[in-house]
Amino acid sequence: MTDTATSGRRGRGGGGAARRAERSAVSFETAKYIERNIPNFEVLTEEALEIIETNAEIILEEIGVNFPDNPAALQRWRDAGADVDGERVRIPKGLARELCKTAPSEYTQHARNPERNVVVGGRNLVLAPVYGPPFVRDAAGGRRYATLADFQKFVKLAYMSKWLHHSGGTVCEPTDVPVNKRHLDMLYAHMTLSDKPFMGSVTEPSRAQDSVDMCGVLFGEDFVQQNTVMTSLININSPMTFDDVMMGALEVYAQNNQACIISPFIVGGAMAPVSVMGTLTQVLAEVLAGIAYSQLCRKGAPVIFGAFVTSIDMNSGAPTFGTPEASHITYGAGQLARRMGLPFRSAGSFCGSKLPDAQAAYETSNSLNMGLLSGVNFMLHACGWLEGGLVSSFEKFVMDADQLGVLHHLARGVQIDENAQAMDAIREVGPGGHYLGCAHTQANFKSAFWKSDLLDYKPYETWQDDGARDTQALASIRVEKMLNDYQQPAIDPGIVEALDAFVAKRKAAEPDSFM
Amino acid sequence: MTDTATSGRRGRGGGGAARRAERSAVSFETAKYIERNIPNFEVLTEEALEIIETNAEIILEEIGVNFPDNPAALQRWRDAGADVDGERVRIPKGLARELCKTAPSEYTQHARNPERNVVVGGRNLVLAPVYGPPFVRDAAGGRRYATLADFQKFVKLAYMSKWLHHSGGTVCEPTDVPVNKRHLDMLYAHMTLSDKPFMGSVTEPSRAQDSVDMCGVLFGEDFVQQNTVMTSLININSPMTFDDVMMGALEVYAQNNQACIISPFIVGGAMAPVSVMGTLTQVLAEVLAGIAYSQLCRKGAPVIFGAFVTSIDMNSGAPTFGTPEASHITYGAGQLARRMGLPFRSAGSFCGSKLPDAQAAYETSNSLNMGLLSGVNFMLHACGWLEGGLVSSFEKFVMDADQLGVLHHLARGVQIDENAQAMDAIREVGPGGHYLGCAHTQANFKSAFWKSDLLDYKPYETWQDDGARDTQALASIRVEKMLNDYQQPAIDPGIVEALDAFVAKRKAAEPDSFM
Repeated sequence: MTDTATSGRRGRGGGGAARRAERSAVSFETAKYIERNIPNFEVLTEEALEIIETNAEIILEEIGVNFPDNPAALQRWRDAGADVDGERVRIPKGLARELCKTAPSEYTQHARNPERNVVVGGRNLVLAPVYGPPFVRDAAGGRRYATLADFQKFVKLAYMSKWLHHSGGTVCEPTDVPVNKRHLDMLYAHMTLSDKPFMGSVTEPSRAQDSVDMCGVLFGEDFVQQNTVMTSLININSPMTFDDVMMGALEVYAQNNQACIISPFIVGGAMAPVSVMGTLTQVLAEVLAGIAYSQLCRKGAPVIFGAFVTSIDMNSGAPTFGTPEASHITYGAGQLARRMGLPFRSAGSFCGSKLPDAQAAYETSNSLNMGLLSGVNFMLHACGWLEGGLVSSFEKFVMDADQLGVLHHLARGVQIDENAQAMDAIREVGPGGHYLGCAHTQANFKSAFWKSDLLDYKPYETWQDDGARDTQALASIRVEKMLNDYQQPAIDPGIVEALDAFVAKRKAAEPDSFM
Repeated sequence: MTDTATSGRRGRGGGGAARRAERSAVSFETAKYIERNIPNFEVLTEEALEIIETNAEIILEEIGVNFPDNPAALQRWRDAGADVDGERVRIPKGLARELCKTAPSEYTQHARNPERNVVVGGRNLVLAPVYGPPFVRDAAGGRRYATLADFQKFVKLAYMSKWLHHSGGTVCEPTDVPVNKRHLDMLYAHMTLSDKPFMGSVTEPSRAQDSVDMCGVLFGEDFVQQNTVMTSLININSPMTFDDVMMGALEVYAQNNQACIISPFIVGGAMAPVSVMGTLTQVLAEVLAGIAYSQLCRKGAPVIFGAFVTSIDMNSGAPTFGTPEASHITYGAGQLARRMGLPFRSAGSFCGSKLPDAQAAYETSNSLNMGLLSGVNFMLHACGWLEGGLVSSFEKFVMDADQLGVLHHLARGVQIDENAQAMDAIREVGPGGHYLGCAHTQANFKSAFWKSDLLDYKPYETWQDDGARDTQALASIRVEKMLNDYQQPAIDPGIVEALDAFVAKRKAAEPDSFM
């Protein structure tokens, strides 16, 4: 437990802040995860899908994948019937796919507030914030290394964002906390400042175990063994390398029945071929091997078919975002995941821009829209991502989070009942009339259209009188207001004490390390 | 012909400018119109489509549509078998749909450069710039009334924009030219400053006739009578009113075999019901009546099923853009158009933002992506739209035009041949390697990924050293460079003289009017 978190928490619970929050009458409503009532968009033909599936099996059997520095993993593969040669694992045709069959097609991730539970898989879409950036940016302070205070602010913003279903994981790297201890502070923040579901640590197997143990304190140990309370991010070191740290974390989570995203990490042209088909083939081979391995660790362990995909600017080597090729790969990966009957993770608020400007928004919208239509079930990085993932942006966090409302309303599909047909309204108004005051409009207008909580719809003159603010300026105001309005969700003081004690004990157990 | 246009044209043809342009070695390449190799996205079930089609016929038969101040139109409807009561036309069930059957499913719009011809319909998508704003904006000059000089700049930018197939029409209103003469200057600019296809005037039937006559000068009168050389925008005054000026222009164009977009103009909740189904029903009824009427004017006249759709902010009454409900309506309208076998027009670079900022880009990307997937065949407003259509933005024009490249690459779909499968590359690189230097990458990287001509992919430090520019600032530079690099496409001097004479004669024929 950190002093910052404590004082923040206690301060917010205090009389003055509580009264202030009450007066402001802020809604803390969180939308239910998206249950799609629209089709998925599919770009690959049956022929293309079969080619990819055949070629992926060839890769696994003939080329194989590497599990370096992990004798236990090699033994598991050997026992399962794979051909192990040094760190190389060659998997006979059909074996990986067969092993994947014990992975569930969907699972419930429990939150400490059961109303915030999410069901991952099927036609659902769960939205979680940006993950991983070492820097933060806001208009007032510019770009700087992220701190635990920044981290806590992002957790609060995620908690208060209506269209976010998940608190995420490393919303930014708290670089002011020792590397070997920051996972404790991050988990503590997710557990105490929010009541939405969250992710565990993957940077060391021991930190994954700490995550499981802290969940034992929060949820009760029996509950954790019987239910999934974390979804954590296991990246594959593409091409086709499963490093021992990530695999160690996966082993801990799988053995404890906790969910993992098994995710190739692809910058196309660098970590995979420059073609859509080639990339999809490698992605499928990697996911087959990774998910098969998760099931070797524990049959039935919940997992997600992941695909982090960007293209590359071949001149500079910079990753590029919101591009059509990344969309093709994601659409195709969604099809492959559905054919395996597995939940799918991809897309996000990806952009290469340094600022939350038009470039950032074009790239992000391209990816968010594609993510919805490609059938993504778990979208990490759904808001706040900036500068190729180097920066968590406060303004972009609330800008993107607002746009996530568009996805919710798109996913609802079209109502076709008599009220929706509106023939009475058309009769009432007739040629040359207008619908603003008619009975159907009065009865339906409140829920008819998605409405932004952020964007500007004012007349030009009013907008100018108000300071001619751009989107970033509006977002700065919104960030400040949300943090000011924040109220901590209720939590059992006994559990907080137990978490405090756990964190203090684990921090005392080893010296600080910033490596 | 205006002095501005002349001096601009002659100036650019002069020695210094020509040499400057040659040195800069700019590519004037224009991409072919999009031929989709991806599916359309459809949100309506067969049941929903049938309900809409049934209800639209009920509207036409029971409620009817208005053709005010247009005795000739009423006579045409009477002769066709409709029930005419005052200005109200009630159309017996099935009649409008039957009349629509003579409209072609696709047509070629000819450009003076045959390489720029476009085929409108089928799986194609033709992209045309913003249409109609009375204001322009750029970073240097702010927001101001548009002039003919602005108009000419936009025509030049459209000509030089690789992903734009069409020069459009009223890219902004040249408010410094009399209302009754500006159509001549606008057409002259499209004809002489560009060689891409363009639109005709619709603000008076006589101006439509001027448009046809000027095309007679440019293409030859016989050619015009035998071919379509303009696609013009006929808005329906929703709900269900076909005003005499627009219908008069439609009559001229249809009788001269020139194409028109028949387009309901819908701000949902004001000009149509607040529901998706209700709006689609009204849109279909209006389009059925409008296209049927075009075929009464001339069987076989080329037309487009149009749908300009936005939602509304019910608090302020402001139209809102890039919203999920507008997307549902557009997806549905595309389905309805395809069931009628007609080309479809909708979507665009719509946004409500006052600035080319993140809001503008979110809203625009939502609409552009949806437009591609909804099967739009002709996208007006594909770039440059700002502030709800009040402003043509120079910076946003080039920003959006760059993003249109994303649509081109998305529409290509996925290659599945052996080269695309890239198995040799995967074998060559193997686990733990990288693809940057492999043979497959070397052979394919140039065409593998869409590449922005505008967006920033630089490392942070370089970007900062270069002035930490946002997208608008990069776009300002691009606008200036494009206008500087502009070279007029070759045109027969005899034709230019004849156009000059035509414009001079028509301008002399009536006094200036600014009403």
